[in-house]
Amino acid sequence: MVMVTKEQALVKKIKAWSGSTFIGDDCAVLANGMLVSTDTLVEGTHFRLDCIDWRQLGWRSCAVNLSDIAAMGGRPRYLTVALTLPPADGAATEGQMQGNLEQFYAGFTACANLYQAEIVGGDLTVGRDVVIGVTAIGVSHEAGMLLRRGAQPGDVVVVTGDFGASAAGLQILLGPDQQAREKYPQLLQAHLEPRPRLCESWALVRQTASRGALMDASDGLADALYQIAEQSNVDIDVDLAAIPISAQTGEYAASLGLDPCQWALYGGEDYELVATMAADLWDTVELPFKKIGVVIARPATSGDDSENQPHIRLLEGGMPSSRFSGVVDLNHCFKHFC
Amino acid sequence: MVMVTKEQALVKKIKAWSGSTFIGDDCAVLANGMLVSTDTLVEGTHFRLDCIDWRQLGWRSCAVNLSDIAAMGGRPRYLTVALTLPPADGAATEGQMQGNLEQFYAGFTACANLYQAEIVGGDLTVGRDVVIGVTAIGVSHEAGMLLRRGAQPGDVVVVTGDFGASAAGLQILLGPDQQAREKYPQLLQAHLEPRPRLCESWALVRQTASRGALMDASDGLADALYQIAEQSNVDIDVDLAAIPISAQTGEYAASLGLDPCQWALYGGEDYELVATMAADLWDTVELPFKKIGVVIARPATSGDDSENQPHIRLLEGGMPSSRFSGVVDLNHCFKHFC
Repeated sequence: MVMVTKEQALVKKIKAWSGSTFIGDDCAVLANGMLVSTDTLVEGTHFRLDCIDWRQLGWRSCAVNLSDIAAMGGRPRYLTVALTLPPADGAATEGQMQGNLEQFYAGFTACANLYQAEIVGGDLTVGRDVVIGVTAIGVSHEAGMLLRRGAQPGDVVVVTGDFGASAAGLQILLGPDQQAREKYPQLLQAHLEPRPRLCESWALVRQTASRGALMDASDGLADALYQIAEQSNVDIDVDLAAIPISAQTGEYAASLGLDPCQWALYGGEDYELVATMAADLWDTVELPFKKIGVVIARPATSGDDSENQPHIRLLEGGMPSSRFSGVVDLNHCFKHFC
Repeated sequence: MVMVTKEQALVKKIKAWSGSTFIGDDCAVLANGMLVSTDTLVEGTHFRLDCIDWRQLGWRSCAVNLSDIAAMGGRPRYLTVALTLPPADGAATEGQMQGNLEQFYAGFTACANLYQAEIVGGDLTVGRDVVIGVTAIGVSHEAGMLLRRGAQPGDVVVVTGDFGASAAGLQILLGPDQQAREKYPQLLQAHLEPRPRLCESWALVRQTASRGALMDASDGLADALYQIAEQSNVDIDVDLAAIPISAQTGEYAASLGLDPCQWALYGGEDYELVATMAADLWDTVELPFKKIGVVIARPATSGDDSENQPHIRLLEGGMPSSRFSGVVDLNHCFKHFC
């Protein structure tokens, strides 16, 4: 079973080609402790202009990048925004384009300012599709930094918020069901205007003194669990019933006859945090996280690399869940690169 | 006469919308003196894949971003690379795409390493066209920083290298003339593999103790002179005959019956540096620059903003050049946004 997506395989190759020692976490950590991350939103791949307005697009473009800083427990400071736009003589007139851009920057700036970050630069270019390239620069939290590779056997696995709402919202946006749009505003908002979990990440890094693992679930909960397990050389057991799923997500999934856990595990774009921390500490502190599983030691293998992949076991009542063949498979992720 | 391009007008609006105090120079200067700049290359706008190979595209993508650090006299340190690529099931197979990417990163890394910079992160996304978004992060030179707004009346205007070669090279690449490709390799190289003028910028900032103005001529010599004059609230007189133009550029222009000064002033993408410095210092130091003009005080106006635009006078034998109506007009730039 191939457990690694093509994108992840390609990232490893790029790391080798570029000789970079920085690639591999949500942010690069620079020599002076600053954090840097870059994320691109492409029209037709990450958004459709008939499903999102320009203010929401601005908010979302900022939020997904701040989420990468949250994924290290850091504090965002600076943002650059590189916009590629179709020429104004195309579908939009120059006046319309300026109105769109004003809305875009209103949304972007509202999100940035909420978390004490600001735009410091950018670039404007012409292209066939709208492409939004954002780079976020932040500083490490004074209590330290949480990386993907910090999970240890015995840790509990904890998450913020709930999962699957963004995928559910996207499904509503792409469909013709006007009633669903009115009935499930939280699902639309989860997709269109995600909240980066910065405050939650700061609480975590402070309370744990940065002992543990952290990343954001931008590519889905399953992917986040896999990445943490791979980089920490551990396995993870997840209690399926403990994965937080909102009432609206559950209700909308039921109305379609779908399993909301499918969205939660593989849908992506929830921008929640996934962390591990010491079990005894978890029992004594109050954190805006919920426990969904435990980290377990990975059994010794014969040394064959293909056998040494992490296993993320999905349990129901302590037994492997028959709904998901008992283990996460990244080939089920909704979006694969290439 | 409208002297400001639509792009420049839009950048001013974005500065207002975002409330950013950082926008306006080649790089943003962060609180700790770090420099940040972002530039995007879009297929069909900035390059065509039938005119440039992937190794050259990697080199060029890195070089144009390092040039922004050079434009402040800074030292580049870190680079992020966000790549948007068509899906591998399109024109290229997966194997071809990986081969292309390997070449891209070979070219990018070769350029970065030459100037002690390295890739620290990136992003991979799918889109219809190839879009390359790069963010460069650097540190200020220990001798200080040169900004666009540092020009003073009496300064000399100096430049690195020569101008117009990139536009000439592009013309050859876009045309069918195979003989020209063989005859003018320097013009092709100027366009495909520009050299960021980092060493020259460090020599300048050291020798001038950062008294003067500096920017790169990525949007053409005329644009660079205009930006420096506008931000420094001065005018500039340029001796047309002093603008350095290579023998190959002159010869190729002559073969087409064109004026190479047109390419030099308005063609863009030469990535040379344009600076001003004290005249008495210029007479005593040795720098890898050539003098092309002088900074003069801007005459007082009635206060009407539209009259207070900078004038970049183009002189021949001390008289306004009839070839260019005597003054630069940014509407002649080859590329306008929108």
